[in-house]
Amino acid sequence: MTVQVFNGANIGRLGTREPEKYGTTTHAELVELIAATGDELGLEVRVRQTDDEGELLRWVHAAADAGDPVVLNPGGWSHTSVVLRDALAMLTAPLVEVHISNIHKREEFRHHSYVSAVADGVIAGLGVQGYVLALRWLAAQGVS
Amino acid sequence: MTVQVFNGANIGRLGTREPEKYGTTTHAELVELIAATGDELGLEVRVRQTDDEGELLRWVHAAADAGDPVVLNPGGWSHTSVVLRDALAMLTAPLVEVHISNIHKREEFRHHSYVSAVADGVIAGLGVQGYVLALRWLAAQGVS
Amino acid sequence: MTVQVFNGANIGRLGTREPEKYGTTTHAELVELIAATGDELGLEVRVRQTDDEGELLRWVHAAADAGDPVVLNPGGWSHTSVVLRDALAMLTAPLVEVHISNIHKREEFRHHSYVSAVADGVIAGLGVQGYVLALRWLAAQGVS
Amino acid sequence: MTVQVFNGANIGRLGTREPEKYGTTTHAELVELIAATGDELGLEVRVRQTDDEGELLRWVHAAADAGDPVVLNPGGWSHTSVVLRDALAMLTAPLVEVHISNIHKREEFRHHSYVSAVADGVIAGLGVQGYVLALRWLAAQGVS
Amino acid sequence: MTVQVFNGANIGRLGTREPEKYGTTTHAELVELIAATGDELGLEVRVRQTDDEGELLRWVHAAADAGDPVVLNPGGWSHTSVVLRDALAMLTAPLVEVHISNIHKREEFRHHSYVSAVADGVIAGLGVQGYVLALRWLAAQGVS
Amino acid sequence: MTVQVFNGANIGRLGTREPEKYGTTTHAELVELIAATGDELGLEVRVRQTDDEGELLRWVHAAADAGDPVVLNPGGWSHTSVVLRDALAMLTAPLVEVHISNIHKREEFRHHSYVSAVADGVIAGLGVQGYVLALRWLAAQGVS
Amino acid sequence: MTVQVFNGANIGRLGTREPEKYGTTTHAELVELIAATGDELGLEVRVRQTDDEGELLRWVHAAADAGDPVVLNPGGWSHTSVVLRDALAMLTAPLVEVHISNIHKREEFRHHSYVSAVADGVIAGLGVQGYVLALRWLAAQGVS
Amino acid sequence: MTVQVFNGANIGRLGTREPEKYGTTTHAELVELIAATGDELGLEVRVRQTDDEGELLRWVHAAADAGDPVVLNPGGWSHTSVVLRDALAMLTAPLVEVHISNIHKREEFRHHSYVSAVADGVIAGLGVQGYVLALRWLAAQGVS
Amino acid sequence: MTVQVFNGANIGRLGTREPEKYGTTTHAELVELIAATGDELGLEVRVRQTDDEGELLRWVHAAADAGDPVVLNPGGWSHTSVVLRDALAMLTAPLVEVHISNIHKREEFRHHSYVSAVADGVIAGLGVQGYVLALRWLAAQGVS
Amino acid sequence: MTVQVFNGANIGRLGTREPEKYGTTTHAELVELIAATGDELGLEVRVRQTDDEGELLRWVHAAADAGDPVVLNPGGWSHTSVVLRDALAMLTAPLVEVHISNIHKREEFRHHSYVSAVADGVIAGLGVQGYVLALRWLAAQGVS
Amino acid sequence: MTVQVFNGANIGRLGTREPEKYGTTTHAELVELIAATGDELGLEVRVRQTDDEGELLRWVHAAADAGDPVVLNPGGWSHTSVVLRDALAMLTAPLVEVHISNIHKREEFRHHSYVSAVADGVIAGLGVQGYVLALRWLAAQGVS
Amino acid sequence: MTVQVFNGANIGRLGTREPEKYGTTTHAELVELIAATGDELGLEVRVRQTDDEGELLRWVHAAADAGDPVVLNPGGWSHTSVVLRDALAMLTAPLVEVHISNIHKREEFRHHSYVSAVADGVIAGLGVQGYVLALRWLAAQGVS
Repeated sequence: MTVQVFNGANIGRLGTREPEKYGTTTHAELVELIAATGDELGLEVRVRQTDDEGELLRWVHAAADAGDPVVLNPGGWSHTSVVLRDALAMLTAPLVEVHISNIHKREEFRHHSYVSAVADGVIAGLGVQGYVLALRWLAAQGVS
Repeated sequence: MTVQVFNGANIGRLGTREPEKYGTTTHAELVELIAATGDELGLEVRVRQTDDEGELLRWVHAAADAGDPVVLNPGGWSHTSVVLRDALAMLTAPLVEVHISNIHKREEFRHHSYVSAVADGVIAGLGVQGYVLALRWLAAQGVS
Repeated sequence: MTVQVFNGANIGRLGTREPEKYGTTTHAELVELIAATGDELGLEVRVRQTDDEGELLRWVHAAADAGDPVVLNPGGWSHTSVVLRDALAMLTAPLVEVHISNIHKREEFRHHSYVSAVADGVIAGLGVQGYVLALRWLAAQGVS
Repeated sequence: MTVQVFNGANIGRLGTREPEKYGTTTHAELVELIAATGDELGLEVRVRQTDDEGELLRWVHAAADAGDPVVLNPGGWSHTSVVLRDALAMLTAPLVEVHISNIHKREEFRHHSYVSAVADGVIAGLGVQGYVLALRWLAAQGVS
Repeated sequence: MTVQVFNGANIGRLGTREPEKYGTTTHAELVELIAATGDELGLEVRVRQTDDEGELLRWVHAAADAGDPVVLNPGGWSHTSVVLRDALAMLTAPLVEVHISNIHKREEFRHHSYVSAVADGVIAGLGVQGYVLALRWLAAQGVS
Repeated sequence: MTVQVFNGANIGRLGTREPEKYGTTTHAELVELIAATGDELGLEVRVRQTDDEGELLRWVHAAADAGDPVVLNPGGWSHTSVVLRDALAMLTAPLVEVHISNIHKREEFRHHSYVSAVADGVIAGLGVQGYVLALRWLAAQGVS
Repeated sequence: MTVQVFNGANIGRLGTREPEKYGTTTHAELVELIAATGDELGLEVRVRQTDDEGELLRWVHAAADAGDPVVLNPGGWSHTSVVLRDALAMLTAPLVEVHISNIHKREEFRHHSYVSAVADGVIAGLGVQGYVLALRWLAAQGVS
Repeated sequence: MTVQVFNGANIGRLGTREPEKYGTTTHAELVELIAATGDELGLEVRVRQTDDEGELLRWVHAAADAGDPVVLNPGGWSHTSVVLRDALAMLTAPLVEVHISNIHKREEFRHHSYVSAVADGVIAGLGVQGYVLALRWLAAQGVS
Repeated sequence: MTVQVFNGANIGRLGTREPEKYGTTTHAELVELIAATGDELGLEVRVRQTDDEGELLRWVHAAADAGDPVVLNPGGWSHTSVVLRDALAMLTAPLVEVHISNIHKREEFRHHSYVSAVADGVIAGLGVQGYVLALRWLAAQGVS
Repeated sequence: MTVQVFNGANIGRLGTREPEKYGTTTHAELVELIAATGDELGLEVRVRQTDDEGELLRWVHAAADAGDPVVLNPGGWSHTSVVLRDALAMLTAPLVEVHISNIHKREEFRHHSYVSAVADGVIAGLGVQGYVLALRWLAAQGVS
Repeated sequence: MTVQVFNGANIGRLGTREPEKYGTTTHAELVELIAATGDELGLEVRVRQTDDEGELLRWVHAAADAGDPVVLNPGGWSHTSVVLRDALAMLTAPLVEVHISNIHKREEFRHHSYVSAVADGVIAGLGVQGYVLALRWLAAQGVS
Repeated sequence: MTVQVFNGANIGRLGTREPEKYGTTTHAELVELIAATGDELGLEVRVRQTDDEGELLRWVHAAADAGDPVVLNPGGWSHTSVVLRDALAMLTAPLVEVHISNIHKREEFRHHSYVSAVADGVIAGLGVQGYVLALRWLAAQGVS
């Protein structure tokens, strides 16, 4: 079993994109941080990012078939994508939704996420540490 | 003239996806059912599924150019995709919107479809038979 | 078992009423079309129309007692009648809601139907063929 | 051609019902007032009142068939009855909507009438004189 | 003076209709229960049920003329009927609105009743005992 | 006592302005029609039109001081002007609001008028005859 | 088992507070009325009132632990307190919500109660007799 | 510096309250879990629970004065308490909001928290592990 | 520097206009009261009233140019005038908004004022004393 | 008779709490300012602050019993507390609501106050001088 | 034919009014810029500004009579003036709406303009160059 | 530096798609028009169109990296795509949003664009000339 970490649209730009909101950690550094955390926790972890909704759907389908747990940062799709929600509803292993910034401090349209109602839990506003905490929670759930 | 049957995001997962909502027929079986119906009705029919919005738009563009009738199950894009609606508005032959489940029994956000106002008609909740009925209606309209 | 086809208020006016919306088939011709379809499918079918909500409620009560499937075009009551919905909720055999015109292309207040959430499926915008398709679906469900 | 004056639910109670809102003229006196006005204007006028929505629909159907102009006080159905609106949309001769009280001074739910958008004009708050004015307007339109 | 108990649409189906919501007491048994309660309290009571809105209006008109108190279960009309509200506003004796089920636990559209603002009080969710309590309250008010 | 007829913004353009909505009668012809009606009814009538809100307010103030009845077509100010409503609330003689077109058939924002709740009655959609009927009603009220 | 009667904020002011809305019975008299009713019905009853939300929560917690039925008049907290609703959701014995005045005749914000959806039933507008009826209903349910 | 963990109304009931939503861990066990986590992370931690809003405000005031970081589970006050938000806005050290259940899967009124916009981050739906993760995040921020 | 007191539409009618809402002080008496207060406080004060929005805009422009503080009772424009708000946003000296009546006790549409968000403060419901208090506040701010 | 000045939740923090919004005057200094103003005006004044809603209710009850005028800064309860409104509705002497900051410049949820509709007047945004002006107004009303 | 450039309320203040929003170009300089552009394009252009809505209406009436194209910056009236929209609907030559600032970045109430639906096109946020572009577009349309 | 012109979904269909809304210019002709304009203005310009949201995001990312100005016609994505807005927020050079048709004359859902708030300016309804004007504005800003 592999923990699948999926990052949605624009998250590959981390570090250069509005750093006052998203911090200065780059996506490459995020991948390293997650890998290191996986090693520490004894979890097999894979991180991928995409700007194509269809590709993300296919990754989710594969995770559903494999029974893999998922850590997902849906980015802007959180607020608009019913097809992503529909795909995620097929997962059988746990799903944690992560947002780097605190979406509740931002524009009104960011306060609702279609993903949240099909996730097990949500972590928002804790920066890239949110991914680390999500992995820790999966580990605490006995995922290995 | 070919009747184009387009299935949107996640519909390739039919049979394995939430079968209590969508039934146990797989997408492959659905393709067969549609083919058999086409044969029975003397209609040339082609079935395709995609998880990429852009690909669906291009199929719709081609159908508009060819003057082909369309049977469309837009899946979750029903509720969110203005670009799909805009593409469909270019069709000159009939368009039937099909939903396998009864979207009016489900979450509030599924009650509105951007597609419906540019379709000729809508069939919802009658399972995969909805596709069969859509083809029958096209045949009754003199499509051949 | 008899398939009960119920037509609500103003539907007796078919053919003369706003033909650009509802077509030129008269109610009498609709009855014949439905009878012919029933014969073809081997279904016992009965068609009735009423402008009295109370009478419709009693027909639904009787269908509930008899375990009869129902094809219902609720007309304008779709959008306003909770008592009709409450009566329909008692049915044990399948219920198909039919609208001749595509209600989603019309005024905002016609987009919501109280009936849809207690129906098995909905067919809208396919003209009087909608009744034919509803009967075919019932037949395909093994109603006989 | 006969001008059809239709009074909806509860209007038969005129004179005894909340006289501070509806005045002290009884329905019988209203009928007389309308008859006298018709005589003065040289119009054939018929006044009927009903508490049954279905009966009112049938009267409207008949007026549509006869090409008769209609003066309608829909009472409380103004705010709730789509089937009444649908029936009225079939009229080919003029339709004037009359309200005895000024519905815009009352509860929020009385500010919207489904009838108004299919009527030629609306008179509200001028008491039973509203009927007289409606007849005068029909006469001025050349109805006779 | 007679206490008028009016039951609206579908309530004649009590006992067979969705018993998990409305209980297993039949309408006939309800009539008996009310009669027995009336006897115990020394109240003259009459129970009627109708699926015709017009008939209910006429009963209310008669109660208004007679100065009779009313116990009313408006069923689904609670949420949609302005004409019923208008008729009830003419009553001079007390009016108690009764709902067998707790309408506040159900669909959003059942949370508002047009009747409540013209009733003296409302009892909901206490099953058929709601009628008994309404009668007891009338008796305690000195109705006899 | 003089009946004051006030026409709001753009109404001086009558006859040239969107004649499919407002008819071909010019403002000068309207003034004549009103004068003739006043003569017929034995009413002293004065007609004025303005495109300046402040001027209209001052006319209303003067009518309030004189105890004059008012017939007002507020034009587009109907939907936006609280100061007009506040001025009209000072009138002690009757106020009739007149709209030439049926505002309920037009854009949503024209369905609400701030004036209606402080008027005695409203006439809409009956063309320039609406003014004539308003004068007749005033005459019938004993204004002279 | 003891029937717990809880009165929320301001209800200790009964009799002096807006008597046209809440009547002239004082809280002390209400306590006596409830005690007398308990005696008559053979129910052990305890009545308490508080203006502190936290204290009410603790009473509800204790009732949940004891399995006691509750009669609750939440006063103004009905419309605003999620924590009260959360506490009440823990009760295992019946809960009846009582309002002395008919909240549906009052300001819009009083029409919704957070409590109703977790109560078995609701009694509103029947004055202090509401408490008596709630106790009778509990007795009829076999509480003793 | 002490990390202040504050639990709001009803959270003292943990373990007995709706365990399908909140799990079977008791509040005492939660306190132990937090203490153990604090020890592991080298953080001084204090856990308190209250059902009194005023008491919680005073604790927040003290934390503001001391410059202490706060982990807060506001329970039902999340959705209703502006005074709590106002108090939290005075904090200078980090604030993490924790919800044991996933509030986005529950009733609509639980989807908005007044607290979130003044918190640094939010963790929801991860059970009592949410507190552990909040402490880990504080430790990672250099709190000690 | 002169304190500019501006009174909007209809306020010249003070004393005769709905005295139960606005009191019996006339506008002339208000001018005297303000003058006397200015004298007492050592403030140069000028009071003007207009029913023309354009004139008010020009006065505000002049006050902006002069750096004068403003006391403004916008009357009904409060609720509708964006251009007034835009003009006021140019002021550099303090602005106090005054309402004679308590707008929060009146119709819903009076509860929002476009002016408030660009004013320093708001005084409502304290009658003509509101102007006196506004002047006192300006004096306390060191205006002279 | 004593003028009761009540300050709600968090107002004891004045001077230290978000001084850019509330100024640097401490609560102790506010008490002195109010005392000095009372002395100047010959008013007996008492100032109290609480973070407990129940305590505030009891103070209001006492003021109602004593017939004392009240100056109230409800803080965040303004926007959420129906029980506070209910208590204040019992006052017979004048009530002035004071807000130190201009709530109309802040978040949307601060624009509505449940208190305003039961207050005589409202002063907002004028800093701690708002209390002084409220006392002056009471004095001008003849309170002594 | 003359291109009429109309500037609404407050736009005469350009250059001094909130320059961070509207830039430092004065209205006189804007007039020059437009004149120079007209010369370059061979267009006869006239620029006027007014703070009186009635005056603007009369200018629009004259443009309608002359068949002149219009470039209009309605300022704050964009969001509130139905009478302006009604006047503009009479134009037969093209109408371009210009906003100096990007109204979609500002307060919610500035996002809707009554003018847009009767204009041919809209230019917003491009500063005073917006006027230049509007003239160029008119020239490209063959206006001369 | 290159001015990047991006056309979103369905815009490649220009000329064949609903020409009454979008005109008869084809996309190829639009490309030529833009090229010619670039030449005239001395701007390096590149035009691309895509039906894939992901591809558009990557183009925007590249423009952000290059510091290129962007002219964007987002088509139907205007109204639905938060990820597009998020990508555009990274641009450092100017962004002009162009719509060929006047979106404010069309369906309600087209009146809001997620893009507008992150654009410098918006041009709508001026046909393909909108692109030309956008380039002219960029040139006037000193882009070269």
